[in-house]
Amino acid sequence: MGAKAPDAYAELLDHVQQLSYVADAGGLLRWDQQVMMPDGGTPARSKQQSALSTLHHDLLTDDDLADSLAELEAVDLEPEQQAVVREVSREHERARNVPRDLVERISETTSEALPVWEQARADDDFESFAPVLEELVELRREYAEAIDPDRDPYEVLFEEFEPYLGLDTAERILERLRDELVPLIDDVADSGVTQPLPFEGTFDVDDQEALVREALDELGFDWNRGRLDTSAHPFTSGTQFDARITTRFDEEKPLDSLSSTIHEFGHATYSLGLPDDHYGTPLGESRDLTVHESQSRLWENHIGRSQAFWEYFMPTVEDHLGVGASAEDAYRSVNRVYDDNLIRVEADELTYHMHIVLRFEIERALIGGDLDVSEVPHVWNDKMEEYLGVRPDTDAEGCLQDIHWTNGTFGYFPTYSLGSVLAAQLYDAADAEIGPFDDTVRAGEFDALHEWLTENVHQHGKRYPTEDLIEEATGETYTADYFLEYVTEKYGSLYDL
Amino acid sequence: MGAKAPDAYAELLDHVQQLSYVADAGGLLRWDQQVMMPDGGTPARSKQQSALSTLHHDLLTDDDLADSLAELEAVDLEPEQQAVVREVSREHERARNVPRDLVERISETTSEALPVWEQARADDDFESFAPVLEELVELRREYAEAIDPDRDPYEVLFEEFEPYLGLDTAERILERLRDELVPLIDDVADSGVTQPLPFEGTFDVDDQEALVREALDELGFDWNRGRLDTSAHPFTSGTQFDARITTRFDEEKPLDSLSSTIHEFGHATYSLGLPDDHYGTPLGESRDLTVHESQSRLWENHIGRSQAFWEYFMPTVEDHLGVGASAEDAYRSVNRVYDDNLIRVEADELTYHMHIVLRFEIERALIGGDLDVSEVPHVWNDKMEEYLGVRPDTDAEGCLQDIHWTNGTFGYFPTYSLGSVLAAQLYDAADAEIGPFDDTVRAGEFDALHEWLTENVHQHGKRYPTEDLIEEATGETYTADYFLEYVTEKYGSLYDL
Repeated sequence: MGAKAPDAYAELLDHVQQLSYVADAGGLLRWDQQVMMPDGGTPARSKQQSALSTLHHDLLTDDDLADSLAELEAVDLEPEQQAVVREVSREHERARNVPRDLVERISETTSEALPVWEQARADDDFESFAPVLEELVELRREYAEAIDPDRDPYEVLFEEFEPYLGLDTAERILERLRDELVPLIDDVADSGVTQPLPFEGTFDVDDQEALVREALDELGFDWNRGRLDTSAHPFTSGTQFDARITTRFDEEKPLDSLSSTIHEFGHATYSLGLPDDHYGTPLGESRDLTVHESQSRLWENHIGRSQAFWEYFMPTVEDHLGVGASAEDAYRSVNRVYDDNLIRVEADELTYHMHIVLRFEIERALIGGDLDVSEVPHVWNDKMEEYLGVRPDTDAEGCLQDIHWTNGTFGYFPTYSLGSVLAAQLYDAADAEIGPFDDTVRAGEFDALHEWLTENVHQHGKRYPTEDLIEEATGETYTADYFLEYVTEKYGSLYDL
Repeated sequence: MGAKAPDAYAELLDHVQQLSYVADAGGLLRWDQQVMMPDGGTPARSKQQSALSTLHHDLLTDDDLADSLAELEAVDLEPEQQAVVREVSREHERARNVPRDLVERISETTSEALPVWEQARADDDFESFAPVLEELVELRREYAEAIDPDRDPYEVLFEEFEPYLGLDTAERILERLRDELVPLIDDVADSGVTQPLPFEGTFDVDDQEALVREALDELGFDWNRGRLDTSAHPFTSGTQFDARITTRFDEEKPLDSLSSTIHEFGHATYSLGLPDDHYGTPLGESRDLTVHESQSRLWENHIGRSQAFWEYFMPTVEDHLGVGASAEDAYRSVNRVYDDNLIRVEADELTYHMHIVLRFEIERALIGGDLDVSEVPHVWNDKMEEYLGVRPDTDAEGCLQDIHWTNGTFGYFPTYSLGSVLAAQLYDAADAEIGPFDDTVRAGEFDALHEWLTENVHQHGKRYPTEDLIEEATGETYTADYFLEYVTEKYGSLYDL
């Protein structure tokens, strides 16, 4: 049997690579749709994407793959080969249990849901969206039951986005964030400290674009393997050979494009740090959403919102935007905690996580059947008041603000906070090992940090489950200690606590 | 059996649509590679494209499709359904006879050939390219024999690009062009007439871009279903929902970008005129290369190089480029016949076809085994001297100038001339039916011509074989009469013959 292993493994790799290449082609079609495609192209693009999805599903669930996997499970393999088999088996099993017609119904319903949600949000009319949301909740419950009828359906959905850390860990982390951040947010509100606002006014979009391009240059973006474009919602797409960032520009919010670009830059560095020679296999793919979000948050927050960065970068901002603020004022401004913060994507590093806790609690109750769709608006508003001390006047600024549920996505939100928590842990480990970074950031030197992240995170692809990857990188199990220490110190200092 | 027809036909359509959607996804990947992709993306893109090609080949040759086709051939179908079956059968049969490993060998050899050809052309070193060319000729001969061992292999290859008109028609047309154009070109050379050159100098690329965008506006390009970008070699790509043009700018040749844009606009109007509701089936696809090239040549030459167009458009050119020539001088300039014309893509409407005749004769002899690869350079140069009265000093300006053979493409060149000939026939029919166009072109009105072309050509997709489509549109069989009449009159007048 040992003699057959290489053949079966080679067949598996070949099959898996075809799968990846088709998935990446689909990724390009989505990028193009959001960045380049003329509006009239939508009907054809939907069909092209659906054809690729169907082919992908067929390749992922086919009998040849099942046979190769069965054969390989009985064979001695190298650790890297074991990792590949583990990852492919997991995806194969999940997909194989889901009836093709359910996949198609979910795809159709989410397509139909998008314009309904857009209209409901524009009209501040939750009731017109409620039946669609109900259907999506029902379909996802069915989907989770198809994958594993014996487990909490929300847990099954959550594992689509974070397959290894476990829902119990997510729950523990989010509860701890809630318990420790709510009083800190209260203290900030009560501090009486206000931050300066040197970036008021309107700023030319071309100047903003020149600024973010220079920021990418300085941070070390590899333009030979990437692009920057604009889209309605910023995102990152691509592979280790071609990682593309988008941003958006608002004349009145010049720093939003900068921080969103640095956030997406973090995602792109992860893609670009994956090993070239494992392209198309799990060893050349990123380790899901918690780790991905840790990379974007690390660059956005631990670098892009640090005092050292603003000491280094403020002259460049001044060159492009003509704002003559001190580095200290700029730093204080970009870290301002808003007391009327209703919108998740505009939130600071503290209140952000309350937006996530609230969504996590609501979507879990929805999928679990403990909350009726009709109750979502008032539960949302009550929790906003409890966690953030502010109550939305409209559902448009409340439970209709995010696109995730409309996309049929439940269980995704927690990875935003899990990623932020991991960012702090990784940053601390890197800082302890090769830092302190303050002086290097102040000098605009980022190579050592890039190298540490590539060596300790990116180059492993999916070789390790999430918790093992974290332990390999930091020497410790996954913990919120570093994040809480970081925000306590940072905001304590900013708000004289 | 009649009762089963609709089911089998629906299955066929579904299968064929999947095929088309995958092909169109591949088309987007190629567009992106030439227009948007950072250089570093090449290795991943090659693999994605190869995966889609393999899936396409598998779908096109699979047994389900063979069964549906066999079932439908025994059934009474509507004419439109018959057309779909005819087109799909043809492609299925061709693909099914070609061994997959031969497809892969051709794909690999052409990938490897590209850099060899680029280097050989740069070094003017035909000998280093000769072994690759020999291999490509051999592979294509094998390919043609796999499809049909009983027919002239060049004929089989030609039918990949023009499946219906027949190689005998191509031969007859090209011989007639050679016989009638060679003396006309001699007369032009002997006329002693020289044309004015008002577009000498350097012209800003941004000004040129503004000019070609305005030209597209004026001609009626649908920006909601299309784009204009730049690439190394101009091309058109896409579907009836999303047709994308590229052009390129040379500071010293401001009219090249204009005429290449109008040429590609012609291709795009064909795509955009295909019926939306047949997207993904042969009824929603263009009728191969002769007809496609007729659309590009019609707009490029019969409109874009006409006196009426320059009377209308010269003020716009003046606005953007600052050239103050008369419409008459501009018209004469863009129709100048160069006496030292070595390069096909720079040729005028007369000498262009001698470039094609020469390539047709050489590639046919190569595939037929009547010409050795080593003889290509001197045969090329001899024919240049015979047909055009000029002998290239280098192979870089001779037999190494085109990319087609390097791409493993033999039998494509004739469609350029066949398309020009058809353009004249279609333009004459439209002009007779709804013209004369001179006054409408002079007034910048193109709607009637668009409508005529859409109604008589575009909307039919692949419903009719080429010769039937031509007869439906013009009321006559395919003929070179109109083209020869057109150039004889036009160049007779320009050169006082």
